[in-house]
Amino acid sequence: MRHAVRTASAASAATTPADKLSRHEKPDSVMPRIAVDAMGGDHAPAATIAGALLALSDSTVDVQIQLVGQESVILSELAKQGGVPEANAARLEIVPATQVIEMNDKPSAAVRGKRDSSMVIGLKLQADGKSDAFVSAGNTGAQMAASTIVLRLHEGLTRPAIATLFPTDRGAPIVLLDAGANVDCSPLELLQFARLGAVYAEDILGRPRPAIGLLSIGEEPEKGSLAVKEAHPLLLASGLNFVGNVEGGDLPHGATARGPLDVVVCDGFAGNTVLKFYEAVAPMIFGLLLKHGAPKSAVDAVAHMFDYAQYGGAPLLGVRGVSIICHGKSLPEAIKNAIQVAALAVQHGMSAHIGRSLRATPVEGTQ
Amino acid sequence: MRHAVRTASAASAATTPADKLSRHEKPDSVMPRIAVDAMGGDHAPAATIAGALLALSDSTVDVQIQLVGQESVILSELAKQGGVPEANAARLEIVPATQVIEMNDKPSAAVRGKRDSSMVIGLKLQADGKSDAFVSAGNTGAQMAASTIVLRLHEGLTRPAIATLFPTDRGAPIVLLDAGANVDCSPLELLQFARLGAVYAEDILGRPRPAIGLLSIGEEPEKGSLAVKEAHPLLLASGLNFVGNVEGGDLPHGATARGPLDVVVCDGFAGNTVLKFYEAVAPMIFGLLLKHGAPKSAVDAVAHMFDYAQYGGAPLLGVRGVSIICHGKSLPEAIKNAIQVAALAVQHGMSAHIGRSLRATPVEGTQ
Repeated sequence: MRHAVRTASAASAATTPADKLSRHEKPDSVMPRIAVDAMGGDHAPAATIAGALLALSDSTVDVQIQLVGQESVILSELAKQGGVPEANAARLEIVPATQVIEMNDKPSAAVRGKRDSSMVIGLKLQADGKSDAFVSAGNTGAQMAASTIVLRLHEGLTRPAIATLFPTDRGAPIVLLDAGANVDCSPLELLQFARLGAVYAEDILGRPRPAIGLLSIGEEPEKGSLAVKEAHPLLLASGLNFVGNVEGGDLPHGATARGPLDVVVCDGFAGNTVLKFYEAVAPMIFGLLLKHGAPKSAVDAVAHMFDYAQYGGAPLLGVRGVSIICHGKSLPEAIKNAIQVAALAVQHGMSAHIGRSLRATPVEGTQ
Repeated sequence: MRHAVRTASAASAATTPADKLSRHEKPDSVMPRIAVDAMGGDHAPAATIAGALLALSDSTVDVQIQLVGQESVILSELAKQGGVPEANAARLEIVPATQVIEMNDKPSAAVRGKRDSSMVIGLKLQADGKSDAFVSAGNTGAQMAASTIVLRLHEGLTRPAIATLFPTDRGAPIVLLDAGANVDCSPLELLQFARLGAVYAEDILGRPRPAIGLLSIGEEPEKGSLAVKEAHPLLLASGLNFVGNVEGGDLPHGATARGPLDVVVCDGFAGNTVLKFYEAVAPMIFGLLLKHGAPKSAVDAVAHMFDYAQYGGAPLLGVRGVSIICHGKSLPEAIKNAIQVAALAVQHGMSAHIGRSLRATPVEGTQ
C-alpha cells in the first residue's frame, strides 16, 4: 500500500520556517532536514530507504527526510517495503535526481559529469538552504569531492577530514581523524584535524574539553615523522587539551598510561590503514574463536561492540554544512544511525562551531 | 649447582672452525654461534638466560650460545636457575661486558658512550668474525644504531628495516616491514624493503618467490601517499613477485581478493602503528570475550596464535650480519625462538643472500 509522499524538485523544495534562519544557528526546536542519498551504497536503494523509514519511525530521531534519487526507483522501493506509515508521510519528501554516481566511478569526473546525480543534488539542497545535512553510503571519494565543491570548506582549510569512531575497551569510543581523506599531511593540517575532531567530540559525543592525542611511534615529542614532530609544538600552543603523542597500542584502550583519550589525530594514510585493519581483524578473531568452540552468544555480544553500523557513519569535517559518509555495505540500522548523527550535528550547529574554533585561534603565519 | 662454563674476553673469544669461513657462506653443518644480550629486556637477565638455556636443551635448535653481559650477574643468575646441564656446558660461553644500555637510554648517545655494553660487545663479536648472530630484548633504538654502526649496512642501503611477522587467519603469517626503523621513507627505500622482506620470507619462512604487496589506502596504483605512488612502478619493474597495493583490511587475512600475500611493504610509521595496534587489540578482544563468558580454553587457544613469543623476534634487515630484535617484554620462550630464527638466518646465509639481491638488480640512477 502506497501513501502520499510529497515530491519536490531540487529547485522548489518545500520552504520551511527553518529556511529563515542561517542553517548553522538553528535552534534545537526546529526539525533537522536530512537529505539521504537513496541511490548510494552496495545495498541501495533497499537499505537506504529502509534506513530512512527506520529513522522516521524511531521516536528518538526527530527529523524530516529528503530521499534523493530516481523517483520511479524510490517510489517502487517504498511500495515494496510496504509504503510509508501515514503518521510519518508528512516528514518524508522525494527529491528527484536522474543520475547515479556508481561505486567505481572516478570521483572528480563523476562529480563534474553527473550534475543531476543524487549526490550532487542532495548536497546542492543544503548549499541552497533547503536541507540541513546529507547522508550517503555511496562512492566515498565522490562524496568528499562533491561536498568540498558544493558546500565549500571553512576558511583556512585546504581539505576536509573524515572522522571515525573507534570502539575501545573503556566503554566509550574515541574519534580518530583523518581516516583517509588526506595523505601526506602538513603539521598545520594535523593541527586543524585536532580542532575539527575536538568539536565533533564535544558536539556529537558530549565530551567537554576533549583530550587530544597525536598518533606517533613513541610517546616522546621527538619521535615520529617530520610532520608529526612539527605538529607537536603547534598542538601544545593550540589551546586545545593536547595530551601528547599516542601509539597504535593505545587506540584499543582509548587511553594512554597518562589518562583517557577522546580524539586521536593522524594523517589519512595511517588512519585509513588502522581503520581498515580494525574492521577486518575483529571479525577475523571472532571467526577463529567460533572455530575453536567459543559459544556464539558470547562472541556475538562482543562482536556487537565492533559493529560499525551502530556508530552512525563518519562525518566529513571541515565542510560548511553536514555530510555524513556511511560504509558502502551499510544496512538499514547503519543508515538510521547516520541520520541520527546528522541530526545531532545540525542541532548542535557543529559546522558553525567548527568555523568559530578555526577562527578563534589562528596559527601565526597562516592568516 | 654450578657447572663449568667457559668465559672468554671479547678480544679472545674461542676460535672455531667456522671462523675460517666467511660468516655469510657457512655451510649448514657448522653450528651457528649466537650472541645473546643477557642484560637487555624488561625481564633480563632471568628471562634472557633462561631463554638461552631453553635453546641449548631444545634438540631442534643446534647452536652455540655466547651470553654477553656482566659476568658476575650472569654467573649468579645461571646458578639461581640451577646451573647449566653438563651436556650443554660446552656449547655455552660467557663474554663479559661491563656496561648495560638501559631501556630508556637515548640510542645514539648510549652506543657512543657505552662501548663496553653487552649490546656493543655482542655485535662486535660478530663484526670480528667470532660470532654469527646477535639476539637482544634490550633498547630497540640502541640495537638499531649499534647494529648499523658495528655491522654496517649492505651497499646501497641508507637504513636497516625491522621485519615482523603478522598472524593471519590463513594459517601462515605474513612479513610486514618496515615496522618502525624508518619514517618518511622514499620510494626507493620502499623498494629496498621489498627486496629485504622477500629474502627473509624465502630463507626463514621457506616461501619461494614470495608475493609482495605494497600497503596503501586503495588497491588502484594511483591511490596512496606520494612515496607509495612512486614506489608502485619501481616494484612492478623490480623482478620481484609484486602483486600490487594492499590495504589494512587485507593484513589479518594475509591475502587480497587477488591471492595470498607473503610480504607487505610500508613505511615505519604505518608499520609500527598497525603492529602496536595488533599487539594491543587482540588481547583487548580476548579480555572482552572472557568478561562476556567465553570459556578460557577457547580464548587461550586462539590467543596463542597471537602470542608474539612464538614468532621469534624481528630481524633487523639490511645489516651485514644477523641482528634479531626481541620484544622488551620477552619471556624465555620468546628468546629461545629468536635464537632459533637467528640460527636459521645464519644457516641460510640470509645476509649474503640480501647482499646478492640488492646487487643483482640495481634501480636505474641509484648506482
